[in-house]
Amino acid sequence: MSSGRLEAFTDAVIAIVMTIMVLDLRPPTGHTFGALHPLVPKLLVYLLSFTFLAIYWNNHHHLMQVVERIDGRVMWANMGLLFFLSLTPAATDWLGPNTDTTAPVVVYGGVLLGSALAYFVLAQTLLALHPADSPLAQALGKDWKGKLSVVAYVVAGVVAFAVPEAAIALDVAVAVVWLVPDRRIARVTLDRPPEDS
Amino acid sequence: MSSGRLEAFTDAVIAIVMTIMVLDLRPPTGHTFGALHPLVPKLLVYLLSFTFLAIYWNNHHHLMQVVERIDGRVMWANMGLLFFLSLTPAATDWLGPNTDTTAPVVVYGGVLLGSALAYFVLAQTLLALHPADSPLAQALGKDWKGKLSVVAYVVAGVVAFAVPEAAIALDVAVAVVWLVPDRRIARVTLDRPPEDS
Amino acid sequence: MSSGRLEAFTDAVIAIVMTIMVLDLRPPTGHTFGALHPLVPKLLVYLLSFTFLAIYWNNHHHLMQVVERIDGRVMWANMGLLFFLSLTPAATDWLGPNTDTTAPVVVYGGVLLGSALAYFVLAQTLLALHPADSPLAQALGKDWKGKLSVVAYVVAGVVAFAVPEAAIALDVAVAVVWLVPDRRIARVTLDRPPEDS
Amino acid sequence: MSSGRLEAFTDAVIAIVMTIMVLDLRPPTGHTFGALHPLVPKLLVYLLSFTFLAIYWNNHHHLMQVVERIDGRVMWANMGLLFFLSLTPAATDWLGPNTDTTAPVVVYGGVLLGSALAYFVLAQTLLALHPADSPLAQALGKDWKGKLSVVAYVVAGVVAFAVPEAAIALDVAVAVVWLVPDRRIARVTLDRPPEDS
Repeated sequence: MSSGRLEAFTDAVIAIVMTIMVLDLRPPTGHTFGALHPLVPKLLVYLLSFTFLAIYWNNHHHLMQVVERIDGRVMWANMGLLFFLSLTPAATDWLGPNTDTTAPVVVYGGVLLGSALAYFVLAQTLLALHPADSPLAQALGKDWKGKLSVVAYVVAGVVAFAVPEAAIALDVAVAVVWLVPDRRIARVTLDRPPEDS
Repeated sequence: MSSGRLEAFTDAVIAIVMTIMVLDLRPPTGHTFGALHPLVPKLLVYLLSFTFLAIYWNNHHHLMQVVERIDGRVMWANMGLLFFLSLTPAATDWLGPNTDTTAPVVVYGGVLLGSALAYFVLAQTLLALHPADSPLAQALGKDWKGKLSVVAYVVAGVVAFAVPEAAIALDVAVAVVWLVPDRRIARVTLDRPPEDS
Repeated sequence: MSSGRLEAFTDAVIAIVMTIMVLDLRPPTGHTFGALHPLVPKLLVYLLSFTFLAIYWNNHHHLMQVVERIDGRVMWANMGLLFFLSLTPAATDWLGPNTDTTAPVVVYGGVLLGSALAYFVLAQTLLALHPADSPLAQALGKDWKGKLSVVAYVVAGVVAFAVPEAAIALDVAVAVVWLVPDRRIARVTLDRPPEDS
Repeated sequence: MSSGRLEAFTDAVIAIVMTIMVLDLRPPTGHTFGALHPLVPKLLVYLLSFTFLAIYWNNHHHLMQVVERIDGRVMWANMGLLFFLSLTPAATDWLGPNTDTTAPVVVYGGVLLGSALAYFVLAQTLLALHPADSPLAQALGKDWKGKLSVVAYVVAGVVAFAVPEAAIALDVAVAVVWLVPDRRIARVTLDRPPEDS
């Protein structure tokens, strides 16, 4: 079983999740620049969620380039990732105007944590299907960025009870760390023929 | 006629159906954890619908791997399946806060039943196009899971008039049975070259 | 320039147009079977619009199988078709509860007419790019079904001022005529190798 | 790394952005032709936004045909373009009934400007990855249309403070200039084998 259709389906779901978030970017009834004011935090939270989803798409894309085969378990692990990612718009919508309140910040961080764990499960499921010396195994290596992200999200969840804004700053920091494309995998794929992706 | 574009279109529709359901996951105006309380049953029903759609996508994916040709009839049978699946968000939206009420439970089960029947029609339409000893025919076999599901949905529809929650439990049970990837087809595809999917 | 990405984009737009229509299938606040009553005409109109979009997708799919090359003009003609198809949800939403009123019926028929004309322009643009003895030219032939549909939509638009329901019946009749897959093209593609689609 | 999946993801996002704009094309509660009156400016603005998104898709499609390789930077530049394009529905929604008011016109023009700059960055990122005599470098050439568009959007933003309608006219003029497919790239791709796209 090759991964072509799994990738196509994942692309479609992530593209939709990304895009339906803009349905909540509604300007108020006024038509002056001042009317845009309450939209600013919403736009920034949208940008953050867009970035997280873009990171997942990028990493998924890199990951799939070194995958040689998938099975039913991988398909379900991938569905688990898509489920958590699909909760992003609801969490974003709640966080938008409430960045200084504990509950929305914790819920938003919880969706990030769930997505990170689901991605970890997906990577492990794939590893179990590939030999220890496969390009995938080499590419994933120790996955310290993945593990660090999980720790950061848990810390952010605790911090949110004291200073919600600090928890968001921690979430942003994780995004920045991931913005650098996954060089581990890029390194492995460099020597492969271009038709591989 | 190969099935490439039919699969791509099906992927897109299922991805959208899955994802627009989250548009109904709106937290109330409060911003405490307590405000999330009414969202819990909605989230569980969303998870159930997401799982059903994921099962259909998985089974469709497995099915198409052993399909050798399609025709106009197959395209319409597939559209029938997509039509019933597209009713899932509306049924989910109604069931969400009303899991203890007969009508929403019956309507939700009706959408599941319609989808199951449409999938059965799709499989039969494909069978009519393939020889009796084709991988597809071997893979589908007696299709007892498909037939059992239809029976379970009908029973759930009757039970819902007495105990709505029991009907939902029956729907969940069907989902659990299907969560195991379709080994019938997996078995047949195991020996085929990887480029087949 | 091959048509691969044009088809993928068209698939995505039609899939989304089809699916966002269900966002208007909202049950009222009640939770009895009676609460579903006002939903029945909406569901029937949704089924009609779904069928029209499925017909366009099917015909587009068949058409593209005999297309050998496209150019910038074809891409814009295709965008014109997508624009008119994208108006379907708005027209469907208005027609849903107003099937006995002239204006919504005329507007709905106008979207059908615009889509039919845009498809005709797309076919002509493709014809201008292919030799007179190409499979495409043979497949399209005289295109009497396309021309008849345009006439029927115009007649329906006039009839709607007297008896709106009769105009809808005419629209349904056109859909039924198209439900039969386009045998003209199916005939031509029969002898082509399976990897063509 | 080939660009196949990047294109597929871009197609999906643009298709969704295009299509969710129609969710705002809601007829008022009346059901006469007069009830459609307030919809006319909204429909025209939708047509303008649809055209801009179609232009970006067309240009992206032409661009990717001469791209020989991509890297992580290209993927992020592409995400930047998708982010600005995804703001189109919100800007369109605000502009729809307010075409004579400064703020919505400036914001709409700002989204156009952001998209144009993001496309410029994408093109430059691709150029940095290809040799100076590559088909891509030849195809992009001096990119005077891209630079002219940026200047026009900035002028429109200033003009909007005096005469909002004149700013919109300028935006429309840019769209008209782009409606002609990118002959620079079409010229280069003409001699390439058809399987290139």
